[in-house]
Amino acid sequence: MDGLLVIISGPSGSGKGTVVRELDPEKGYALSISVTTRQPRVGEVHGRDYFFTSEENFHKMRAENALLEHAVYVNNYYGTPRGYVEEQIANGKVVVLEIEVYGALQVREKFPQAVLIFLLPPTIDELESRLRGRGTEDLVTIDARLKKAMEEVSTIDQYHYLVINDSIATALEKIDAIVLAERLKPKRCQKEIQKFSN
Amino acid sequence: MDGLLVIISGPSGSGKGTVVRELDPEKGYALSISVTTRQPRVGEVHGRDYFFTSEENFHKMRAENALLEHAVYVNNYYGTPRGYVEEQIANGKVVVLEIEVYGALQVREKFPQAVLIFLLPPTIDELESRLRGRGTEDLVTIDARLKKAMEEVSTIDQYHYLVINDSIATALEKIDAIVLAERLKPKRCQKEIQKFSN
Repeated sequence: MDGLLVIISGPSGSGKGTVVRELDPEKGYALSISVTTRQPRVGEVHGRDYFFTSEENFHKMRAENALLEHAVYVNNYYGTPRGYVEEQIANGKVVVLEIEVYGALQVREKFPQAVLIFLLPPTIDELESRLRGRGTEDLVTIDARLKKAMEEVSTIDQYHYLVINDSIATALEKIDAIVLAERLKPKRCQKEIQKFSN
Repeated sequence: MDGLLVIISGPSGSGKGTVVRELDPEKGYALSISVTTRQPRVGEVHGRDYFFTSEENFHKMRAENALLEHAVYVNNYYGTPRGYVEEQIANGKVVVLEIEVYGALQVREKFPQAVLIFLLPPTIDELESRLRGRGTEDLVTIDARLKKAMEEVSTIDQYHYLVINDSIATALEKIDAIVLAERLKPKRCQKEIQKFSN
């Protein structure tokens, strides 16, 4: 059975990182691995944590449309390599890409068969308290993040599914159901259908 | 939460009747009830087994677009009343309509928000053995049904999902996942999304 690419996105404070880490590899989930130009840190393994590469090669990949999205962060480039994603899908994996909202829409452009899931806490109050709870941001930052979250929610029609992250367990259950349902779409069941063709 | 209409269809021998009877009402499933012009049999209850009506009223409903599909069988008319379906959906029910393949496509025309599931046994051999196993049909009939099944499979692209009915338990699990996933589509979560709008 062919796999698929699932993009899990949502505002800062939606809990997407936590949810993605809890997806069960036994169910075929495999996290997408980014390519980056930054130096490996102690303990990081090429091909497990990141694909480390030169700036020259990164720009070559970009030019050859070998990245599904890319961004700069603290003077280093990061991107999602198309080749790795396609290889994992061919192996039947459910490749999971956790990414911020506009990055997700970039991927959708380049990989229209991707399944886009938008994660949200149950209420704005909950979102705010999650942002405050981190204790690492000042009030101005929290306010800016809340405003940004509201803007991001307005792109939700470009996503396929909305998962309210009221508990990790129910969020995981919903993501599992989405993946199972998506695999039952006729376009992904051509082998089964061909058995019934003349 | 608003409900939805789920159409479960598939060739004769796909097991759709058995699967539909096993859907758990505790999960919000409610079978669609047909309107018919035939006489009630002993024990049948109006509004539970059928909505019994006159031929005159049936034709009036047809003319007023109050039927999602209709058919004639042994000189009696049968149809799916739109009003009942819409009422149940407004009550949050997952209305289930078990119907043959072309009837399903009729409903899709009139009710585009319906979710269409195509049910199939794992192989043609299995389909044939199920048709034979009934012991009620002669060889010519079985052959005609197999041929018809192959024709029906060719309409599968007009369905949203394919469920291979290799066991009732897994078929039910897949249908539950489809329903959960469909309820997470942004168009069905407008109330949740509005909480995050300005």
